[in-house]
Amino acid sequence: MTAAAVEALLRPRSIAILGASDRSRWSRTAFDNLREGGFGGAVHLVNRRGGQVHGQAAAGSVAALGEAPDLGLVLVPAEAVADSVRDLGAAGARSAVILTSGFAELGAEGATVQQSVADAARQAGVRLLGPNSLGFINFADGVCAWTTPVRAPTRRDGVAIVSQSGATAYFLSTLAWRQDVGLSHVVATGNEADLDLAAVALSLLRQPATRSLALFIETVRDPAGFLALARAALEARKPLVVLKVGASEVTAKSALAHTGALVGDDRVFDGLCAQYGIIRARSVEELLTTADIMGRAGPLRPGGLGVISNSGGICEIAADSAAARGLVLPELAADTAAALRATIPGFATPHNPLDLTGAITPEQCGAVVDIVAAQPGLAAVLCPYYEVPTDAVDVNERLSGLHAALASGLSRAPVPGFVVSYTGTHLSPLSKRIVAETGMPYLACGLDLAVTALSGSARWSERLRQPPAGAAKPPVAEPERPRSEHTALRCLARHGVPVVPAVLAKDAEQAVQAAEAMDGAVVLKIASPDIGHKSDMGGVALGLRGAEAVRDAHARIRAAAEAHAPQAAVEGVLVAPMRPRGIELFVGVTRDPQWGAVLAVGLGGVWVEVLKDVALRLLPVDAAEVRRMLASLRGAAMLAGQRGIPAADLDAVAEAVARIGDAALAFGPDLAALDVNPLWVRGDQVEALDALCIWQDGVG
Amino acid sequence: MTAAAVEALLRPRSIAILGASDRSRWSRTAFDNLREGGFGGAVHLVNRRGGQVHGQAAAGSVAALGEAPDLGLVLVPAEAVADSVRDLGAAGARSAVILTSGFAELGAEGATVQQSVADAARQAGVRLLGPNSLGFINFADGVCAWTTPVRAPTRRDGVAIVSQSGATAYFLSTLAWRQDVGLSHVVATGNEADLDLAAVALSLLRQPATRSLALFIETVRDPAGFLALARAALEARKPLVVLKVGASEVTAKSALAHTGALVGDDRVFDGLCAQYGIIRARSVEELLTTADIMGRAGPLRPGGLGVISNSGGICEIAADSAAARGLVLPELAADTAAALRATIPGFATPHNPLDLTGAITPEQCGAVVDIVAAQPGLAAVLCPYYEVPTDAVDVNERLSGLHAALASGLSRAPVPGFVVSYTGTHLSPLSKRIVAETGMPYLACGLDLAVTALSGSARWSERLRQPPAGAAKPPVAEPERPRSEHTALRCLARHGVPVVPAVLAKDAEQAVQAAEAMDGAVVLKIASPDIGHKSDMGGVALGLRGAEAVRDAHARIRAAAEAHAPQAAVEGVLVAPMRPRGIELFVGVTRDPQWGAVLAVGLGGVWVEVLKDVALRLLPVDAAEVRRMLASLRGAAMLAGQRGIPAADLDAVAEAVARIGDAALAFGPDLAALDVNPLWVRGDQVEALDALCIWQDGVG
Repeated sequence: MTAAAVEALLRPRSIAILGASDRSRWSRTAFDNLREGGFGGAVHLVNRRGGQVHGQAAAGSVAALGEAPDLGLVLVPAEAVADSVRDLGAAGARSAVILTSGFAELGAEGATVQQSVADAARQAGVRLLGPNSLGFINFADGVCAWTTPVRAPTRRDGVAIVSQSGATAYFLSTLAWRQDVGLSHVVATGNEADLDLAAVALSLLRQPATRSLALFIETVRDPAGFLALARAALEARKPLVVLKVGASEVTAKSALAHTGALVGDDRVFDGLCAQYGIIRARSVEELLTTADIMGRAGPLRPGGLGVISNSGGICEIAADSAAARGLVLPELAADTAAALRATIPGFATPHNPLDLTGAITPEQCGAVVDIVAAQPGLAAVLCPYYEVPTDAVDVNERLSGLHAALASGLSRAPVPGFVVSYTGTHLSPLSKRIVAETGMPYLACGLDLAVTALSGSARWSERLRQPPAGAAKPPVAEPERPRSEHTALRCLARHGVPVVPAVLAKDAEQAVQAAEAMDGAVVLKIASPDIGHKSDMGGVALGLRGAEAVRDAHARIRAAAEAHAPQAAVEGVLVAPMRPRGIELFVGVTRDPQWGAVLAVGLGGVWVEVLKDVALRLLPVDAAEVRRMLASLRGAAMLAGQRGIPAADLDAVAEAVARIGDAALAFGPDLAALDVNPLWVRGDQVEALDALCIWQDGVG
Repeated sequence: MTAAAVEALLRPRSIAILGASDRSRWSRTAFDNLREGGFGGAVHLVNRRGGQVHGQAAAGSVAALGEAPDLGLVLVPAEAVADSVRDLGAAGARSAVILTSGFAELGAEGATVQQSVADAARQAGVRLLGPNSLGFINFADGVCAWTTPVRAPTRRDGVAIVSQSGATAYFLSTLAWRQDVGLSHVVATGNEADLDLAAVALSLLRQPATRSLALFIETVRDPAGFLALARAALEARKPLVVLKVGASEVTAKSALAHTGALVGDDRVFDGLCAQYGIIRARSVEELLTTADIMGRAGPLRPGGLGVISNSGGICEIAADSAAARGLVLPELAADTAAALRATIPGFATPHNPLDLTGAITPEQCGAVVDIVAAQPGLAAVLCPYYEVPTDAVDVNERLSGLHAALASGLSRAPVPGFVVSYTGTHLSPLSKRIVAETGMPYLACGLDLAVTALSGSARWSERLRQPPAGAAKPPVAEPERPRSEHTALRCLARHGVPVVPAVLAKDAEQAVQAAEAMDGAVVLKIASPDIGHKSDMGGVALGLRGAEAVRDAHARIRAAAEAHAPQAAVEGVLVAPMRPRGIELFVGVTRDPQWGAVLAVGLGGVWVEVLKDVALRLLPVDAAEVRRMLASLRGAAMLAGQRGIPAADLDAVAEAVARIGDAALAFGPDLAALDVNPLWVRGDQVEALDALCIWQDGVG
């Protein structure tokens, strides 16, 4: 329903500008933009005082227009906005863009006024974009409801820009114009009193003219809506590229648990981007060009990058740049190389990247593109080559021939291919005409950003080849609310997590009996919900063999607990078999205030504590997602085994971690944090050796 | 002497073009460039066949000119180049640029021809640039000896570009023209048969018009020359910015030692960049803009970045971008904030980054710059602000006023400050005029590259504040060539390295005596130059207490050695005190085929083995440089101590590591590798517990 409302808002048949005035630069610009942008419907002007505005008669109110406009562009002062919205609703309009600023961005008082606007809109049945929006541009359908000067792109399809900041949307569309990037829409969502960025983007995903989305995000107001967008984008096979700002905030309330210190907002967002194949950009330029190139290339098949250039230096730069971004440049196959040598006499040893030098003819150039693009194992071809002329003086026959050859070679190629300027440049009207006439897949962003974009393409395409994110199974509710290690392990076991067979001993003799029933050495640990950091206070004894050792250790531990925490409720002592050396994983679940339950997986010790080498995902996850988490760790090589420790059975590990995630969901929303530390792994043996639950009430 | 030769080559009073021809595009372009570039001296043309060329009489040879040109631009075919050089030399010319290609870049045969050219030049007393060079441009003095069309920058001082690739030099100078970056020189060194990139750069450092150097490097042909350049640049306080390509090659011949796998060419180059304050760029754009901004800003004082913008979104992007590159945005001081509130009524809580919004007046804007720039703790100010108009239609009074206010505010500022375009853009002739007229310190590279450049500036400035790189003391030659752990430790001790007091025992009784003379537990290790990986073959016993234990272990170790390597020469068994748990460092020296002795320092275990977390420097280093190496490790926090292990005394560690480096130099060029693994550290106790020398003859 919201998607339909957004679509209606972005495709009105008639528009009224409320607060239209000759004295307002914004009113004038919006009016001109609508006309020059090709809007064919009626544009009504409304001004409280009526009269002539922008050379046309203005009505005193929407009601006085006599017909309901589909959309109102509201420019009246902040305190009058709610009335304008009511006026629109009463007349039958169903959409409004609130261009006026001075609301929640000013603080609490402004937020109250904004709320009254939102309330008025809901009552009047009007959906809102803004307030504090610069408007929107629907290039695909010729609706330019925008309040600063607009330069239309050559192609009215491609990237849809959705930005919470109007200025940033403006920078992005200016850059698109300069670099001849096709745009389908530009939407500034502003303060998002009603429709937010995710709702707008979700609707744009359905537009055929939109091939990819470039989102500038300051804050995600509706996390569930954002995740719905992420899922829909995967399903639609349209890339989401995101520039998200804002320093990360450490999630609160997990002082006792490791993850508390590790799971910051921004890293959670990184994790969900990995989970959903969302590509994060680090600059305005990268946001636009990555969305453009990903949308134009579409999903890539598995493989590396082929590079063809006329400059040896740029070939080397391309190779280094690709390697730094995880893109492989596969060596040319023997018959590819032979075909190249046959095409270009004197070509000693053709390589990828391929330096054609300045001596090649257009015919040879086209043939080379055909040969290289046919090489198996390539996912895309990139040609950093002579730039398209910007001045007529630079046009010459040889250059035109080369460009035509590249254009036609790449159009025949079985994989996406682009010609790219060496460095970021602008296209002049002449350049744009040349590009349009030759149909050359040209990128004016420069080599560096093009390689960055294609690395994003490769990651997104890889994600598309995997099944959709683990479907949320209805969690099996856990009846208990474990507050001790012993009960936490028991509950985890109920959810299928392999746990160490620990026994709670009430006294020394029970401890001895439990130990004797176990093979080999045992571990004793004080069992009390009131005692943390057991090792530090002498509450743990390792490697015990024989009744005597167990009895002694039991006494020592109880005495230490008595001395350390005389008030603590002590349930007894846990007895568990001592496991041989293995790989130790840290598995934690925390509750992010924005995103909900977050799973963290890392290797124990310095990996987590010093390197913060942790993979994060939103729950639920399936085992396949956990495999990807493990593979993404910097210490992933550790899982292949170390001296005397066999390699981890990754399927068994992933299954156990996924079960821990399921258990955490079953514990319900009162669970603040769950730590399994360590999850011990030795080959296909996987066991939770310790577990800790922390609840929202702060009691462990 | 070479520097003088380069200077003479780049500042000729008269020039002859050899191989001048109307049929040659290159000849015509070079001729035109000289005239249009402002060259005031004589330009002679030489063509074997004489006649009229480019509308002027051509001589049949240089000799026939009747006067000696200072410089020859040689365009004749490859096989005729040597003769042309001889012709030049005989006539008295002392410099030549060989523009002809088809030499070493084609393989062995071309290399032979190139060598004959170099030989001819040496005999004729002519210094060469090239072959396979596109020429050079000395903007500062108006000598444009370049073979493709040139667009001159507005400012003829600033960055000197030196590139082994002519095409890359061309991309760089084109970008400079588009973005109005001042250039002093552009030199393409090509195949470097004589003068190489370092020699050219070293000479340019002395030119007042050169404020910084942008180097594109495919290979360093003269490492010693490059290091001389690096030292001279530090001394001259002119930044070196380098884009160096080429996949790293693992240094050879160190299979037995750890560093063999770790020290690749490229990481050594990274290490020496850190050592000498050279800033590495990762793209063509970054190379140019970093050199430009660093040269214009000059050395920065310690401190963070102040950001002033008219867009809240771009403020946030700037803050994230700065943080990602290690630049701090210090919060505004209370009185700075108060002054801002007094200047701009309604300014709620001023922050850094400072969003001035679109509502500010030019007067306020200038006052804001004054206030922010005066804030203590800032090293530089960056203003991502309205871009300079490219079209007359965009010019308006308000924008001009704001730009004038920014220009005058920043000119008064006590720290360097720049106005920067939001994204990378081009300047039109109009924009360039506006920038020149307002004197605005304007950057057209966009926010992202500007922040990257300023982070480079901060690192370079920090390096400038430190003493110059450790001077090479004449090494005390080490008389021995140790081939066993025992002798290696003894030699290290002679060079002041603290080593564990190990004793070589020839038999069990000597071992017992040695153990009894030591406090606490001891370690026994087989002592044989023929046995590596002692632990794996049972050649090590730890934590021995008492004569019985030592005797048993001695027998076990000798038996294991006998079984494992019956042919091995066994010197005995090393007895050493067992040290308590400490921080274990890996210290290695290898010999890079290009750069010579390289020191590697890392933390032991996974840090080196899995994370390759190693700092590299060229030897010699002093203790201060080792401190910086330690601080650069990702695992640096480990040195602050861990559970039960006190923090490392960094001065003591650095001193020991520096001594190890000195010892390695004393061992002379036959040393292939030296490993100290571990260097054990516990508080101020530092000891080499094991040492291994590998010699060029392959015998350990």
